[in-house]
Amino acid sequence: MSKLKGACLFGQSGGPTSVINASALGVLETALGEECITAVYGCAHGIKGILDDCLYDIAQEDPAELQLLRYTPSSALGSCRYKLKDSAVDDTDYKRILEIFQKYDIRYFFYNGGNDSMDTCNKISKYLMSQNYECRIIGVPKTIDNDLYGTDHCPGFGSAAKYIATSCMEIFHDANVYDTGTVVIVEIMGRNAGWLTAASTLASLSGAGPDLIYLPERPFDLEQALAQIQQVYQRRGNCLVALSEGVIDKEGKFIAEYGQDVATDAFGHKQMGGAGAFVAGEVKSRFGYKVRSIELSLLQRCAAHCASRTDIEEAYQAGKQAVELAVAGETDKMVSFQRRPGPDYAIDYVPAPLDIVANTEKKVPQEWITPDGVGLTEDFIHYALPLIQGETELPYENGLPRFAKLKKQRAGAGQ
Amino acid sequence: MSKLKGACLFGQSGGPTSVINASALGVLETALGEECITAVYGCAHGIKGILDDCLYDIAQEDPAELQLLRYTPSSALGSCRYKLKDSAVDDTDYKRILEIFQKYDIRYFFYNGGNDSMDTCNKISKYLMSQNYECRIIGVPKTIDNDLYGTDHCPGFGSAAKYIATSCMEIFHDANVYDTGTVVIVEIMGRNAGWLTAASTLASLSGAGPDLIYLPERPFDLEQALAQIQQVYQRRGNCLVALSEGVIDKEGKFIAEYGQDVATDAFGHKQMGGAGAFVAGEVKSRFGYKVRSIELSLLQRCAAHCASRTDIEEAYQAGKQAVELAVAGETDKMVSFQRRPGPDYAIDYVPAPLDIVANTEKKVPQEWITPDGVGLTEDFIHYALPLIQGETELPYENGLPRFAKLKKQRAGAGQ
Repeated sequence: MSKLKGACLFGQSGGPTSVINASALGVLETALGEECITAVYGCAHGIKGILDDCLYDIAQEDPAELQLLRYTPSSALGSCRYKLKDSAVDDTDYKRILEIFQKYDIRYFFYNGGNDSMDTCNKISKYLMSQNYECRIIGVPKTIDNDLYGTDHCPGFGSAAKYIATSCMEIFHDANVYDTGTVVIVEIMGRNAGWLTAASTLASLSGAGPDLIYLPERPFDLEQALAQIQQVYQRRGNCLVALSEGVIDKEGKFIAEYGQDVATDAFGHKQMGGAGAFVAGEVKSRFGYKVRSIELSLLQRCAAHCASRTDIEEAYQAGKQAVELAVAGETDKMVSFQRRPGPDYAIDYVPAPLDIVANTEKKVPQEWITPDGVGLTEDFIHYALPLIQGETELPYENGLPRFAKLKKQRAGAGQ
Repeated sequence: MSKLKGACLFGQSGGPTSVINASALGVLETALGEECITAVYGCAHGIKGILDDCLYDIAQEDPAELQLLRYTPSSALGSCRYKLKDSAVDDTDYKRILEIFQKYDIRYFFYNGGNDSMDTCNKISKYLMSQNYECRIIGVPKTIDNDLYGTDHCPGFGSAAKYIATSCMEIFHDANVYDTGTVVIVEIMGRNAGWLTAASTLASLSGAGPDLIYLPERPFDLEQALAQIQQVYQRRGNCLVALSEGVIDKEGKFIAEYGQDVATDAFGHKQMGGAGAFVAGEVKSRFGYKVRSIELSLLQRCAAHCASRTDIEEAYQAGKQAVELAVAGETDKMVSFQRRPGPDYAIDYVPAPLDIVANTEKKVPQEWITPDGVGLTEDFIHYALPLIQGETELPYENGLPRFAKLKKQRAGAGQ
């Protein structure tokens, strides 16, 4: 089979991660080295950059700066949360995408993101096929939430997990320092899936982890949780809680909304705090304990200085493999991670059909949650521990990270 | 002069830092190596360990674990916030301290902490002198707040500053990723002095720092701040704000209290959020911008994985120098950091009288704040930048930090 000749386009989508730019490097570097690829473009802000005809010419970038993408957090090309309509209902965006693809002769399209982005990939792929426009389309997975179906895990998760476990260890050391007790509640991202909150359990491998872990996979009972916190506090004089931002009660109501219902201040503001702040307030008013709520917030998805080397390498490989699969003739797929059986951790990168990946959420299996509902089993640790191995080799300048600075020269400018 | 023979006692006090245990190593390792020092003890929870006769026998510790103290955050021996009364008013505690010092023949006492701890040191020193009990007492400075008088800077500050600047860079990258704007407010510790908040400006050296920096050294005017945030947002489509937790208005009222006055929920809880959450709420209700408030919380003082190597080494030296000064005959002093003049950064460790150090707060000089009140001058950068140089060599195990695990064998047990 002769190789398809044409330009390559790459876009980043959804919430950024510590390693999404490592995948960008994998795609861009590999594409720049492929003879059949005539030009390499990056989308400004994902799909919106296509609709706006705002593409960057990657060949203009300094190769040394491109290499720094491996260690640079967030989405260097810009991201978006734009959702394409069904083309049967409204094909305006699709016609525009086809027009831009034709303008730049895009024959390879790589899109890096989570559930929604794989859906976008899938829709574009199906539309272009229906128009008989030949284009190889491969999705590159990413999400700190790790909720993507059809892959062992997602790039971005390992680094977020490492940051969360490291931070929990450090908070554990800090919070146990006085002879008077404290309850610390660490609120962790993951609206529907508890993978990140579960990762806090890795801190317990050195005896400095959360006493209680609450995932959205189990209904959250406030009274029961308060009793559990009280019990731990009475036993060991302190209590560290890892709480998912997405915990819900039996009726399916977010605990974060409990606080928002009742706390509107005189200016009409909703209380800013989420589930952690609410539970902390309950602990304080019920027991009078000293309590602190800590939201890891954006840091858990952008703390590149604490990224997992395994995650960085896998993210890079996911991008590289996407290009190699496309050049070899694959299309309409996502690069999926398959874990090899056996005692040693190893990953195979295999193409998975986009339609089975898109829009299905993968949650923490119930059997990986301990019977008491506040811990994780050995199976989870066996699953998650390999993903946080190794430290980043991020270069420093002036005592601070040296992140990539791209020129972002607009393609077609001056034409 | 013949060397004073006797036991050595070391205690940690006040809020922990990323490097307070590096100072502990400096003291303990040096004391263990001094011939005139007959035994080395650590206080369980600072001064309270003396009052409770709960001392640890450091000679029982595994030397390899002791070495890990260099990279271990928080206070390994435990801390306290116990304030000694004036001995003229009530000398109960002082008599007890003398009794314990006599019991263990403590002739060297080293206390590691901030303002209050130097005051404690000073009071004990004066009391023991009045009782003609010979004991060499040296304070070892620490505080992330950097507000200690009589020293160029404090161990703990450099690591916190490095974490804050690094986190601000990473948040900047994350928050600028969408083509829709966001205001992010990062709330930083420092109740009365703005050193830590000021350190966020170091992130701007690579163009990824806060647009606006509000220190407690300048009165905070809410209307003016909102106008400044609006102006930045309109100009560049995003705005990153570094806000001290301790900002106060013209009348001296904490901005954090603004929110607490108005927001008490139906359960009678005070709103948990501080200044950052309050200002974020104001930005949202006034302008409708997407806004996020991030409290760096405990992480800024315990994130040992992001510690400054310079800070680690200086903290170690501060402990080591304390012992050497005491053995050489000094007492009633604090180890003070003096910066050598000249273009290259270097520190001399010199004894400073405890009474001029205790209970005086050092603030960011007004002339280091830019005329608009929302930035720092080159002088501040020149001051702070050397303190964040170099990265920690913290060892990892299983992908996570390997912190020291002490046995903490109680001295005198079984006697």
